Amino acid sequence: MATSEPLIKLTRGVPPPESFPTSQLSECAVAALAKHGDVVLQYGSSRGFAPLRTAIAQDSGADEGQIIVGQGSLELLDLCARMLIEPGDVAYAEQPSYDRTLVVLRRVGAQVVGFPLENDGPNVEALETRLRSGEKPALFYLVPDFQNPSGTVLSGAKRQRIAELAREYEFWLVEDIPYRRLRYRGEDLPTLHELAPERVIQMSSFSKLICPGLRVGYVTLPDPLVDGMAKMAEDTYISPSFVNQAIIAEYMERGWLAPQIAQLKELYEPRLNAMLQALEAHFAGLATWRRPDGGFFVGMTLSADIKAERLLQAGREANLALTDGRSFFADGEGDRFVRLPFCALTPEEIEEGIGRLAKVVQSL
Amino acid sequence: MATSEPLIKLTRGVPPPESFPTSQLSECAVAALAKHGDVVLQYGSSRGFAPLRTAIAQDSGADEGQIIVGQGSLELLDLCARMLIEPGDVAYAEQPSYDRTLVVLRRVGAQVVGFPLENDGPNVEALETRLRSGEKPALFYLVPDFQNPSGTVLSGAKRQRIAELAREYEFWLVEDIPYRRLRYRGEDLPTLHELAPERVIQMSSFSKLICPGLRVGYVTLPDPLVDGMAKMAEDTYISPSFVNQAIIAEYMERGWLAPQIAQLKELYEPRLNAMLQALEAHFAGLATWRRPDGGFFVGMTLSADIKAERLLQAGREANLALTDGRSFFADGEGDRFVRLPFCALTPEEIEEGIGRLAKVVQSL
Repeated sequence: MATSEPLIKLTRGVPPPESFPTSQLSECAVAALAKHGDVVLQYGSSRGFAPLRTAIAQDSGADEGQIIVGQGSLELLDLCARMLIEPGDVAYAEQPSYDRTLVVLRRVGAQVVGFPLENDGPNVEALETRLRSGEKPALFYLVPDFQNPSGTVLSGAKRQRIAELAREYEFWLVEDIPYRRLRYRGEDLPTLHELAPERVIQMSSFSKLICPGLRVGYVTLPDPLVDGMAKMAEDTYISPSFVNQAIIAEYMERGWLAPQIAQLKELYEPRLNAMLQALEAHFAGLATWRRPDGGFFVGMTLSADIKAERLLQAGREANLALTDGRSFFADGEGDRFVRLPFCALTPEEIEEGIGRLAKVVQSL
Repeated sequence: MATSEPLIKLTRGVPPPESFPTSQLSECAVAALAKHGDVVLQYGSSRGFAPLRTAIAQDSGADEGQIIVGQGSLELLDLCARMLIEPGDVAYAEQPSYDRTLVVLRRVGAQVVGFPLENDGPNVEALETRLRSGEKPALFYLVPDFQNPSGTVLSGAKRQRIAELAREYEFWLVEDIPYRRLRYRGEDLPTLHELAPERVIQMSSFSKLICPGLRVGYVTLPDPLVDGMAKMAEDTYISPSFVNQAIIAEYMERGWLAPQIAQLKELYEPRLNAMLQALEAHFAGLATWRRPDGGFFVGMTLSADIKAERLLQAGREANLALTDGRSFFADGEGDRFVRLPFCALTPEEIEEGIGRLAKVVQSL
């Protein structure tokens, strides 16, 4: 199915440029350099720029001493994996999970075990079975809120149970919540960190709330891990860019984060709705999918047994860019899984892209 | 020897805040965001912001396609080490060498072999002996210009010989040149990269030329390594901060780098002179030291057999902060080695600090 229609990207979870508060960030950069030039242009603590750690602590309710601000949360995850995982160790993840995390875990030698995602989170019976068998995972990586890539929200009951299991079997939970504050409707559930602070490494980022290009992510760690993580960061990059961190600190001090998030919700909720409507219109009978109340993604599973290579190839021929579903699966399955990011597309592009994708799927 | 005199830091190689072009960087930040906001606030290529790669290529004469710009050169070194070194591999370094590099190499499992530094660079006979014995180093890390921590400049003859050996025995040279452009007198020698481009990974940074806080370093790699390094960077931090890289690109496009470097030389040369004069005045007979023509450091070796712990402790009591000499030595020796960074101290502080240090040494 060749087409001359414009390319529609259903690939990565990038925010749209129209969401970037560019002129505000420019003002913040000038103010940050004027106020803190000597500090932010110098080397500093690997824990991050102190006023930003304070602002994050005030915002999140976490203990400032447990917060380390780094250069994007993926790199903090990598540092964490290097600190906690020895080659051959078992690491748990949801299945599907964030593809870049699987790469990071495997690169440090982890054997990644994926627990099938259900509508309310990973299969907890399978988790309990493995733990009861005596397996000792180094960590369990989860995205409880509007999961990447599926959009799934971990239920309250499963949050409780997973927190209990982490306590009982003494493994670390890595809770990655970059999308948590992008809830377009419904109510927040407690974080894993709130339920088991002594077992949870919680990561988040400003990439989805302000912009990715400043590369500012952060992690809240249980006390016994903080110094080791700070040392791991120092030994890797000495200190993160305090310039970028000061820009975000200034942005938060000016009270601009809450209205920015409100604007993002106004921008993204119609895109989520357009995605769900387009799926109803074009994919009924062809696939099943999540109906998330927030985040960046709707995860879809095709009903037909279609190989990922064929789907990607047919997508390219229809000027649709797709991500290989298998990259999200620890066990390499996932041919039929399609991640649909909706935030960087207009409602019209979503309707067009999903319609085109349905034709592609029907043609296979 | 207790003292109430002000603390003098003879520890790390940090530039002084008075060297930071703060208001120029502020202008560049505003311009970069105005021109390139949508690009620099987004995720991008792990190779770095294209206009900065172009500017560096024009400045250094390297091939733009071989340049990767990252978040400080230490992290690029870490990525490089993860790409090239398997646990148990041998890595070569000068002895003494940059302490953070030794940590990075050991962290990926390298067995680091240090070659004693002579006045003109590492002992090449020792190098040849090991290579002829059949040892296969994964890489040889060198700082040929105004070495950290010793100030040594690798001679032209040894540059030629090391480049030949790298070709003959097929190992990678990692040439780290952050201080090369801070030559206060004398003439540049050819880089290892100029002598054996196909075997040299050359790293540098803007930390010592503009400021550390933007965390912008870069590497020029032989063609067979470029894609692997870009993938390693992407899998670690997706992309570096293009905001920071665009600020530096703007700074270079405005022609501000050359005058900045000229000003640094005016600031630092008197400090180097003050250091050399203070050493002549206070350490004749107590130590030997390098007499570099540039850079940040003078390396000194005490004549007396003094243990590092005692020296550091006595230094603290005299309000002198010193770095443990052993941290620069792959073999853990180095008790008698003292790194003297001079750029962040005024000539008066240098005279005072070196005088005080001589009294400390004489008291032990």
